[in-house]
Amino acid sequence: MHDTLNQLISTIAPVNTDLQNIAQTHLDDLTKPQGSLARLEELATKVFCIQSGKIPLKVNPACMFTVAADHGIVSEGIASYPQEVTRQMVLNFLAGGAGISVLCHEFDVDLSVVDAGCVGGAFAAHAKLIDMRLGDGTNNFAKGPAMSRELCLKALCNGASLAEDAAKKGYKTIGIGEMGIGNTTAATAIFCAMLGLEPKDVAGPGAGASAELIAHKAAVIKKALELHNKVITDGDGIDILAYVGGFEIATMAGLMLGAAKSGCIVLVDGFISTAAYVAAKRICPHVKDYCILSHASAEPGYVHVLKALNEPQPLLHLGLRLGEGTGAALAVPILRAAAAIYNDMATFSSAGVTGETCL
Amino acid sequence: MHDTLNQLISTIAPVNTDLQNIAQTHLDDLTKPQGSLARLEELATKVFCIQSGKIPLKVNPACMFTVAADHGIVSEGIASYPQEVTRQMVLNFLAGGAGISVLCHEFDVDLSVVDAGCVGGAFAAHAKLIDMRLGDGTNNFAKGPAMSRELCLKALCNGASLAEDAAKKGYKTIGIGEMGIGNTTAATAIFCAMLGLEPKDVAGPGAGASAELIAHKAAVIKKALELHNKVITDGDGIDILAYVGGFEIATMAGLMLGAAKSGCIVLVDGFISTAAYVAAKRICPHVKDYCILSHASAEPGYVHVLKALNEPQPLLHLGLRLGEGTGAALAVPILRAAAAIYNDMATFSSAGVTGETCL
Repeated sequence: MHDTLNQLISTIAPVNTDLQNIAQTHLDDLTKPQGSLARLEELATKVFCIQSGKIPLKVNPACMFTVAADHGIVSEGIASYPQEVTRQMVLNFLAGGAGISVLCHEFDVDLSVVDAGCVGGAFAAHAKLIDMRLGDGTNNFAKGPAMSRELCLKALCNGASLAEDAAKKGYKTIGIGEMGIGNTTAATAIFCAMLGLEPKDVAGPGAGASAELIAHKAAVIKKALELHNKVITDGDGIDILAYVGGFEIATMAGLMLGAAKSGCIVLVDGFISTAAYVAAKRICPHVKDYCILSHASAEPGYVHVLKALNEPQPLLHLGLRLGEGTGAALAVPILRAAAAIYNDMATFSSAGVTGETCL
Repeated sequence: MHDTLNQLISTIAPVNTDLQNIAQTHLDDLTKPQGSLARLEELATKVFCIQSGKIPLKVNPACMFTVAADHGIVSEGIASYPQEVTRQMVLNFLAGGAGISVLCHEFDVDLSVVDAGCVGGAFAAHAKLIDMRLGDGTNNFAKGPAMSRELCLKALCNGASLAEDAAKKGYKTIGIGEMGIGNTTAATAIFCAMLGLEPKDVAGPGAGASAELIAHKAAVIKKALELHNKVITDGDGIDILAYVGGFEIATMAGLMLGAAKSGCIVLVDGFISTAAYVAAKRICPHVKDYCILSHASAEPGYVHVLKALNEPQPLLHLGLRLGEGTGAALAVPILRAAAAIYNDMATFSSAGVTGETCL
């Protein structure tokens, strides 16, 4: 399993950033003041680089993986919803009634729901469900590692194979979201362990915790990070992910790695998806070239995460704190707009428009 | 003309804000943590009120009016592009090569281009062009009124009739954008005159002015506001719009009034469209209930405008400074998402999902 992952990592190439100038030259020749489409131009340039300078830019078709799993850490009383909600929401995703189902339908994004290890055993077969179960939820990382390194490697490879299959089917854009009661706690632990942040700064309400519960959550995470201090200091990204992560988070990190290998555009969703991204980047920094932060989570700690990441701001700021991939789904039309602008706008000369005179 | 406008204003009803609670009760029953869809919920609630509590929410079909006109103020040397670009861009809109053409096509928004008075006479007929010319550009408002009160009333009525016709054709959402070399100067004058802001705080680069040109622009506006001080102090919204506005801005304000009368959702675009909104609100405050600020213009002065407006932040923050309606077009999918969430998500009971336990 480790060899498989190493081979995957070795095939993830950074994009050729020399292409940025070619993209900007084209964008500057379109009938608009230079730079006036701002983040759409930045997005188009990123896609141009991901697609090795091939035109037209292609961002369709787009698919979404919503990865679900359960977390042993819930036995520390850190969640505001009971654990059975993970399973119930998977069924809701499949039935079309959840936020992500509705948004994917609205935006013509193909949704797959991945069971990476929900409590209660395998689900009945469903056309949109992918069984990549790694167990009946993780272990409680306040007492020991959430999962073994082997299981974490398996999750990463699972995710990578999903992305590679999607790329083979022709998908150009892959959104990555999640469901898992307790997973803001695991995500916070990852942020703290990998970005050097403090649990009290990053722990937030998640699905709806009270101030008291948030303080408890931060304390649980702080203690767990102390318990796993040695692996956090000396281990690699896979170790940390195994110790404080979750099945869905590791699978999502694998999806990001596989998408990068396959030259797909990755739309990172909110708080938990960003934790998977931080882990994926720790495992292979080149993954960054393929990933776009879609939406700034309303989790208060997310600002600290963004500051530590030191990357372009997420595209959208709609105050969402739902996860599932909803922020990524909402970014799909923005990405399509960026590609359309690049592909279809007229140039100054072709449209007979006079350029700027004072610059 | 004045009677026509007064009659229009008298028929613009505020929405019934009691409906907000009904909308929120429904939103709180959907399978998500309460409030977790944040701005989508706010949008859905606004639409629910606009549509008098009728369900399903209907935001399609959507249309866009991009209104173009020229400005006498350009003879003060305040613009970075030559005036002929207004006309050239109208042709580019019609030919499908401009930013707004591409975005409307991408998002299935029906684009109409309104000539409210471009320099150079009437355009050749085109299926997407609406001739509502009020002259060959406005007069230079640094020397006298930009237009007469009568012409301003005509522009307002023109715009209102366009919106009412659109509503009759079945459009539920109306985006409102513009083109007009020099129109950030007119928009800035409107903001200063109507919101009590200072030209030096609001004047910005527009399509690309240098720091020197921006300072000149601010000085020209300051002087013009002094010249028109009496009308700014004693006149009504129509007077101020006539003195320092533009044909496209007045037509856009009319579009907003007509849309409000017809119960349509209005997507206000960026800097100049917001100036039209400020004017429309001055003429009839109820128009606010129907209007959504789509995108935060990257014009540096826009933050002062937003502060003075004291309304919910624009939906999108993509750094655009193009106008044309591009920000409004990008908000269309967000609006569609909000309606879809409201209409199509499952409730906790219907989906068999357990609610929050700790709130």
